[in-house]
Amino acid sequence: MTEQPGRPKYYRGAVAISGDRIALVSDSPQRIERYERERGEGLQVADGAGRLVMPGLINLHNHVSMTLMRGYADDLPLMPWLTEKIWPFEAKLDGDDIYSGAELGIAEMLLGGTTAFVDMYWYADRVAEAAIRSGIRAVVSPAFVGTAFDGYVERTQRMIERYNGAAGDRIRVWVAPHAPYTCTPEQIRESLKLCERNGVGVNIHVAETLSEVETIRERYGKTPVEHLRDLGVFDYRALAVHCVHLTETDMEILSRQGVSVVYNPQSNMKLASGIAPVARLLERGANVGIGTDGPSSNNDLDMWDEMRTGSFLQKVATGDPCVLPAYEVLRMATTRAADAIGMKGEIGVLAEGARADLIVLNLDKPHLTPCHDLVANLVYCAKPSDVETVMVDGRIVVRQGALANGDFGAIRREVERRLGVLQRRGE
Amino acid sequence: MTEQPGRPKYYRGAVAISGDRIALVSDSPQRIERYERERGEGLQVADGAGRLVMPGLINLHNHVSMTLMRGYADDLPLMPWLTEKIWPFEAKLDGDDIYSGAELGIAEMLLGGTTAFVDMYWYADRVAEAAIRSGIRAVVSPAFVGTAFDGYVERTQRMIERYNGAAGDRIRVWVAPHAPYTCTPEQIRESLKLCERNGVGVNIHVAETLSEVETIRERYGKTPVEHLRDLGVFDYRALAVHCVHLTETDMEILSRQGVSVVYNPQSNMKLASGIAPVARLLERGANVGIGTDGPSSNNDLDMWDEMRTGSFLQKVATGDPCVLPAYEVLRMATTRAADAIGMKGEIGVLAEGARADLIVLNLDKPHLTPCHDLVANLVYCAKPSDVETVMVDGRIVVRQGALANGDFGAIRREVERRLGVLQRRGE
Repeated sequence: MTEQPGRPKYYRGAVAISGDRIALVSDSPQRIERYERERGEGLQVADGAGRLVMPGLINLHNHVSMTLMRGYADDLPLMPWLTEKIWPFEAKLDGDDIYSGAELGIAEMLLGGTTAFVDMYWYADRVAEAAIRSGIRAVVSPAFVGTAFDGYVERTQRMIERYNGAAGDRIRVWVAPHAPYTCTPEQIRESLKLCERNGVGVNIHVAETLSEVETIRERYGKTPVEHLRDLGVFDYRALAVHCVHLTETDMEILSRQGVSVVYNPQSNMKLASGIAPVARLLERGANVGIGTDGPSSNNDLDMWDEMRTGSFLQKVATGDPCVLPAYEVLRMATTRAADAIGMKGEIGVLAEGARADLIVLNLDKPHLTPCHDLVANLVYCAKPSDVETVMVDGRIVVRQGALANGDFGAIRREVERRLGVLQRRGE
Repeated sequence: MTEQPGRPKYYRGAVAISGDRIALVSDSPQRIERYERERGEGLQVADGAGRLVMPGLINLHNHVSMTLMRGYADDLPLMPWLTEKIWPFEAKLDGDDIYSGAELGIAEMLLGGTTAFVDMYWYADRVAEAAIRSGIRAVVSPAFVGTAFDGYVERTQRMIERYNGAAGDRIRVWVAPHAPYTCTPEQIRESLKLCERNGVGVNIHVAETLSEVETIRERYGKTPVEHLRDLGVFDYRALAVHCVHLTETDMEILSRQGVSVVYNPQSNMKLASGIAPVARLLERGANVGIGTDGPSSNNDLDMWDEMRTGSFLQKVATGDPCVLPAYEVLRMATTRAADAIGMKGEIGVLAEGARADLIVLNLDKPHLTPCHDLVANLVYCAKPSDVETVMVDGRIVVRQGALANGDFGAIRREVERRLGVLQRRGE
C-alpha cells in the first residue's frame, strides 16, 4: 500500500529493499523483472501471497517503561492514582528497571507492527539503549519536573551528544519538560536552549485535564497553549501531547505555528480526562498524530486499537459518523506522525527512496474477511497478531511473529525478577 | 478464575469436565487427587502452565451474517449508510448467503473466545444451522420490520418448534421486532404471543438514536421505553438493545421490570448514535450486558475490545475514572450476560455443575506482562489471539487457535465466491 495525495493506492506487485531503503515499489512486470535482473544472484525473494506490505505504525507518545506498572493501579481517580500508586512506584525505579521495562514495551510494539515511537521518561538514555538493541526507531526524551531540574540541561546535553543520531540515525533525543503545571517558566525556557543549541525538538504534555487549565489560568492568566507559546516552546519542532481542553485561539495557535498535536484517545478515556477536539484541529489544518501514552493508562501499546478507538471517539463526540474516516486515521499513524517528528517522506510511506520501516500483515484472518475496503479493515479490524514480519531501516526485527533481536521469555523473566526485587525494596 | 460475590477468585488448581458440565474446580491437592483416582484411566489430562481457564465470553447483540458487509460502507451518515448501502445489499441476500456470513462471523467469535451470542436477523434458521454446525451456543432471533410482517408469526412458530432447545439446548429461538420505529404496535403485540405461547424471550433495538426518540414521541407521545412497556414487551424476558437515549423514568422502568440492557459501545460510537448511560443503569440496579452489534457497524466481533472500549467510554462520558472497573465489565460479558438470556449459573461461570463453556488463554504475551492484576489485564489488554482453546458444552471447538469443526479457508472461499455472485446479481 502506498500513499497518493488524499487516498491510498494498492499495488499487487513487488517491494524491494536495498540497505536501509526501499529500492522498488512497482506493479509493472517489466520494472520488477528489470530490477530482478540487475540485482542478480544477491537478491532474496519472499512470496507475499495473501500478505500486505505497508509502512510501520508510529506511536507518537509513550512512557514505555511504565509496562512495569501495567494493571498496577486501574479504575482510580487521577490524583490518588498518581500520588498513592504511580509516583511511589516510580520513585523506587532505577535505570536498570527502566531498561527492562522498555525492553518489554518495545517487544510488544514491534510484535504488533509499531516501528517507531516517541518516549518521554526518566533515564531516557536507558530507553535509548533498549531501542538500539531491539532495532526499533525511537525519539527518546528525558523528562523533567520542576522539583528535579538540577543538572537536567547538562545531563540532557550529554545524552544528545551520545545518542542523537545514534544507530544510523535510528535514535533521536528530544527535550521534554513534563507539563506547564509541573515545570516553571524559567525551567522551560532554560530547557529550550537545548533545542536551540542542538536542533532537536521538544515534547510536552499540554491541556490534559480541566484542572491543569484552571491551574495555569490562575498562575499565568492564560491557557496552557498560550503560556507555552509565550515561553517560545512552539518556536521549535514541538509535539503538544493530549490537547484535550483547547480554546478556538489555542487551535489557531497550534495550526499556525505548525505544532503537531498528539491524540491519546484511550488514555484520555481511561483517566476520564476528556476528548480532544481532533476533528476540529484537522479542519483547521493542524497536524495530528496518535499515541498510546504509557501502558499504565491504556493499558497496552496497540496502535491498531488506538486508531480504531481514536476514530470512533471523534465520531461519537461530534455526532458525525463521517469524521476521522479510516484513511485519515491511518495517515495519523503513519505520514502525519512522520511529519511530526521531522521525518516526512523518510518513514511512514511505502515509496522508493524512503527508509525501509515496513510491516507485513497476514490478511488471511476471519476478522479481515471479506475485504471490501482494505483501509477500513486495517483501521477498524486489524490486530497486532496480524503482523508477521517487521523491518526497521531494512533490518528484520520481527520474523514470523517472533522477535529477531531478543527473546521475549528472557525479557519477561527479567521484568518479573525486577518486580520481585522492587516489592522487597518497598517493604 | 471463578466468581465470588463482588470479586473474582483465582485458582492455581484443576478444572475437570465431564460430559457437558464442569465436574471439578479446585485448588485442593486432596480433592484433585481423589477426582483423578475416581475417574481412573478414562481421564484425559492437559497441563495448564502459563494458561488461564475462564468462562467464555457472551456477545449479547449481533447480526452475525453482516460479516458479508464488513468494511462495505464506513464513515457515512446513518441514513445514506442504511438506504444507499446496507439495505440494497441486504435485499440481495438469500438464505445461503446468510448461512455463509454466519459461518464466517461464528469462526471469528469462537477463535476469539466468545462461546455464546444473541443474534437478530432474517433467515434466522440458517444462522441456527451455522451455530449448530460450528459448536457455538446461540440465541437466534428472527427479525421483522413493519413492511415485512406477513407470515412472521407462523414462520417463527415453526422455527421455535424446530430449533428452540436444539443441539442439547445449545440453540434457543427468541422473538425480535426490529425496533419501535420500524414495527407497528399491533405487530409488536402480535409477535409477543410467540413469547407467551412458547416461553421464549424477546429482543428489540430501543432508543438507539435521538431521531428514533423524536419519532416515537411524535407518534405515541411517549419515550421508546415507555412505549414498549405499554405494549407488554417487558412482561417477557427481554433484551433492550442500545438504550443510548434514556430518561430517568426509562431507567427506572428497565430496572424495575428486570429488563436486561445491551450496551454496544463501539457500534454506538462508530455510528455516532451517542453514549448509553450504563454507569447510571448499573447504579440503579439494572442488568447490563455487552454486544458487538453487527460487523458492519463495529467492524469486528472482538468482545475483548468491546469490554475495554465499553469501560473507557463510560469513564470519559461520566468524567469518573472509577466507573465500570475491570471486574464489573468482565461480569457484563459473562455472568450478567448469562442472567440476561436466562442461563444464570449455567454459563458465564467457572463452577462445578455449570455447563462447560470455557476458554483457555495463553498469558505468556508481552501485552499481558507483568500480571499485577489478572482481571485488569484481561479487560484492558487481552486480545482474541490470546485464546488457544475453546469449549462449548464440554466439546472442544477451538484447538491451538484453529477451528475444530470447520475449516476457515473453506469458509472464506465460500464467502468470497458468494460475494462475487452477489456483485454480478446487482449488475
